[in-house]
Amino acid sequence: MLRALPIALAAVLPQAADARTAPMTTIPDAAVKTAVTLRDDAGRDDTAYELLRSLTSEIGARLAGSENDLRAREWAVARFKALGYDKVWTEPVTYPRWVRRSESAALVAPYRHTLAVTALGNSPATPREGLTAEVALFDSLDALKAAPAEAVKDKIVFVSVRMKAHRDGHDYGKGSRVRSRGPALAAEKGAAGFVLRSAGTDSNRFPHTGVTTWDAKGRQIPAAAISNPDADLLETVIRQGQPVQLSLNLDCGLDGEYTGANVIAEITGSQKPEEIIILGGHLDSWDLGTGAIDDGAGVAISMAAGALIGQLPQAPRRTVRVVAFANEEAGLYGGKAYFAAHQAELSRHVLGSEADFGGDRIWKLDASVKPEALAAVDQMMQVLGPLGVIRGDERAHGGPDLSPMHAAGMAAMNLVQDGTRYFDLHHTANDTFDKIDPAQLAQNVAVYAAWAYMAAEADGDFGSRAGAFKNGVEEH
Amino acid sequence: MLRALPIALAAVLPQAADARTAPMTTIPDAAVKTAVTLRDDAGRDDTAYELLRSLTSEIGARLAGSENDLRAREWAVARFKALGYDKVWTEPVTYPRWVRRSESAALVAPYRHTLAVTALGNSPATPREGLTAEVALFDSLDALKAAPAEAVKDKIVFVSVRMKAHRDGHDYGKGSRVRSRGPALAAEKGAAGFVLRSAGTDSNRFPHTGVTTWDAKGRQIPAAAISNPDADLLETVIRQGQPVQLSLNLDCGLDGEYTGANVIAEITGSQKPEEIIILGGHLDSWDLGTGAIDDGAGVAISMAAGALIGQLPQAPRRTVRVVAFANEEAGLYGGKAYFAAHQAELSRHVLGSEADFGGDRIWKLDASVKPEALAAVDQMMQVLGPLGVIRGDERAHGGPDLSPMHAAGMAAMNLVQDGTRYFDLHHTANDTFDKIDPAQLAQNVAVYAAWAYMAAEADGDFGSRAGAFKNGVEEH
Repeated sequence: MLRALPIALAAVLPQAADARTAPMTTIPDAAVKTAVTLRDDAGRDDTAYELLRSLTSEIGARLAGSENDLRAREWAVARFKALGYDKVWTEPVTYPRWVRRSESAALVAPYRHTLAVTALGNSPATPREGLTAEVALFDSLDALKAAPAEAVKDKIVFVSVRMKAHRDGHDYGKGSRVRSRGPALAAEKGAAGFVLRSAGTDSNRFPHTGVTTWDAKGRQIPAAAISNPDADLLETVIRQGQPVQLSLNLDCGLDGEYTGANVIAEITGSQKPEEIIILGGHLDSWDLGTGAIDDGAGVAISMAAGALIGQLPQAPRRTVRVVAFANEEAGLYGGKAYFAAHQAELSRHVLGSEADFGGDRIWKLDASVKPEALAAVDQMMQVLGPLGVIRGDERAHGGPDLSPMHAAGMAAMNLVQDGTRYFDLHHTANDTFDKIDPAQLAQNVAVYAAWAYMAAEADGDFGSRAGAFKNGVEEH
Repeated sequence: MLRALPIALAAVLPQAADARTAPMTTIPDAAVKTAVTLRDDAGRDDTAYELLRSLTSEIGARLAGSENDLRAREWAVARFKALGYDKVWTEPVTYPRWVRRSESAALVAPYRHTLAVTALGNSPATPREGLTAEVALFDSLDALKAAPAEAVKDKIVFVSVRMKAHRDGHDYGKGSRVRSRGPALAAEKGAAGFVLRSAGTDSNRFPHTGVTTWDAKGRQIPAAAISNPDADLLETVIRQGQPVQLSLNLDCGLDGEYTGANVIAEITGSQKPEEIIILGGHLDSWDLGTGAIDDGAGVAISMAAGALIGQLPQAPRRTVRVVAFANEEAGLYGGKAYFAAHQAELSRHVLGSEADFGGDRIWKLDASVKPEALAAVDQMMQVLGPLGVIRGDERAHGGPDLSPMHAAGMAAMNLVQDGTRYFDLHHTANDTFDKIDPAQLAQNVAVYAAWAYMAAEADGDFGSRAGAFKNGVEEH
């Protein structure tokens, strides 16, 4: 459902609120005016673009638990300080470390082709000499589930599901499910290995990595993604009817426990410093590209937005907190650690949103807020509408790393980015800085600076309290 | 210059020719009619698409001198026979074999990044432990030429020239010149190694390989291409002003002499079998992709066009010869061998054209023919115009492998394909079958079948004789 409240009506809603029992949340006129200025200044500002250039060139790939993961934290601390944030600190995040050392794959019978392959996060290694086995093709997880065990046993299961590009990226649901659930399902049926058609919308020869999830006591098998063109080739050869053999050689796996950190910074509120507007992105990335769209962009957008708010002559009433989350990719570890550390302060987290869908233009605002705060959201829309943002629906999750907070009751918004090309690049070697459009990135900063400032200035809250919202944790 | 002779005028030209001293070359009405049918049937035919699917899936990458090079020849012989060609044979082509074993590169100071790199054809190996040196950036070959020796000596020269996409692909001239001439120039100045911004128009993280050329007695240094995004990254880091070090590890080089072959097949002419209309593509490809656009497409287009002509109830008057050339990539070896073997029969090669610019729609016909044959070309245009082909200029080279024949005097045409996306894919791992649009490929076959048939039926020739045309050999 799209809502676009006429400005005239929005303007009268604060008054109308007086007639209700529960007070309406509204944003003072002066704050709306400041937000307009902030928006326009942010739209011309290159702070986010230069932060992202710096992060992707000076650090680059930031696999959770890697040396670059540490360097990225040091980078974030230094940058937050340089940007004038009032407080900067880190909070520990502990998780199993997964490492990728080498990977290769080939179609070896009836013809020989090198395949563009990448191991999935959490995949164990193959034997050192590799794994060679016949391929069993399935066109869905349901088909794999329905298959008799003998059709799978000792084979390399290949699940081929195509994703199409959409602005809201909704096909990722089916693509990522194959990646996250397929290997465990194939393992349970006795498969020797697993490959999927990459969960991506491109036709480039880049495999898309991403995490897979094992059942607690289940078998684990080597699991990898092949690029879309390689999946096409494999299907072509399989359809010719001869037995098809694949060889997989993955050197990767878990390597102990690692303690990284969320990097957190604040512009301290002038009147209600204990009340928090929270925004952020995740600092880790997969190791194949330089993590520009996923999620250097989100880190840069939120860092820059907070910095611009901090540069105002007068700090906002509430605190604006920016979090560069640790290890989102392997399972929201940073988001879960934040929740564990801060759930007691949930009601003081007034409103939150993480940016984790690239750097292209924001086109929609979804909001999970209390009904009495919808008028304030409509006031935000007055400021965001001229940036091309339309009002979405009343269900948001706040982005992956804030979804645990939201699931527990924090009011949240999603500033939904245009994801049309996101899954062309996502989790590939092709996720690099050149894919960032500076004008669209600046529009993101304008949106984040404006909404965060208005939320920090609002009279009244957005409904954060334990159990207030019933949405689940976002899949990643 | 674009020429589009009105049909009415074209129709009277044969009569007008009677008034001239030199007889005009014309195409009999019946042949034009048959060509229209051939064109329309070819436009609905999937022979080329299925040939290309077969070549790219059953053989794949076909680096000259590799095992797959031999397998591709066997494939071509078998396919020509299965397609009903009257004669199929091979002619030897001998060349130095270059092999690629492994390659990697990294930016190692001031930051560490893995780079997407590929060795250039004819590059020697680095020392086994790799080559690490400071980088010297140049934005053109002229800048490199002008540099003092001390700015280059013992460094890895990095020449960064951007190519833009154009329908006629004309930026490849500047991109390929950096690749073919840059390494020798850098070596002459004492450089330790050479990398270039890939000669490609994409922003994907695929390096574009291709041949480089050494001076006969000059130094040779390891030479490679890095992808456009990696070139962007390298430039960003260099511009920060700290010394930048690159590490290059290439295991590749020349490996003796190899004798491959041109694979040649004919639909024998019914009245003038000794007169030849020649078309073709090159069978070799680089080793990174499966050689779909470069040049499986050209092989498939010409094979299918000849086969459709051969399936007519009545063979054409002249012979239609199709050549799958050997080792175009390393320096037109197949084309030069064909010339060496057949130059004495040059005047019997009535008209020729090789397809070597992908599989996208043909939009233009260029023709190097004698003035008296222009009317016949206009008759061809009557048949090709409805396919979206416009008349180009009077200077053609006949495609890379036929350019030696043309340079010596064979009449030639270019059926110019839309190259807008060609250099996105060219010489990369991304040159795969999924990039082929079957409808556009069929349009190519329709064009080739129609012109070749009309040329084979023409009354009069197109001007082939030693020294008739003054164009040079095409760069590759």
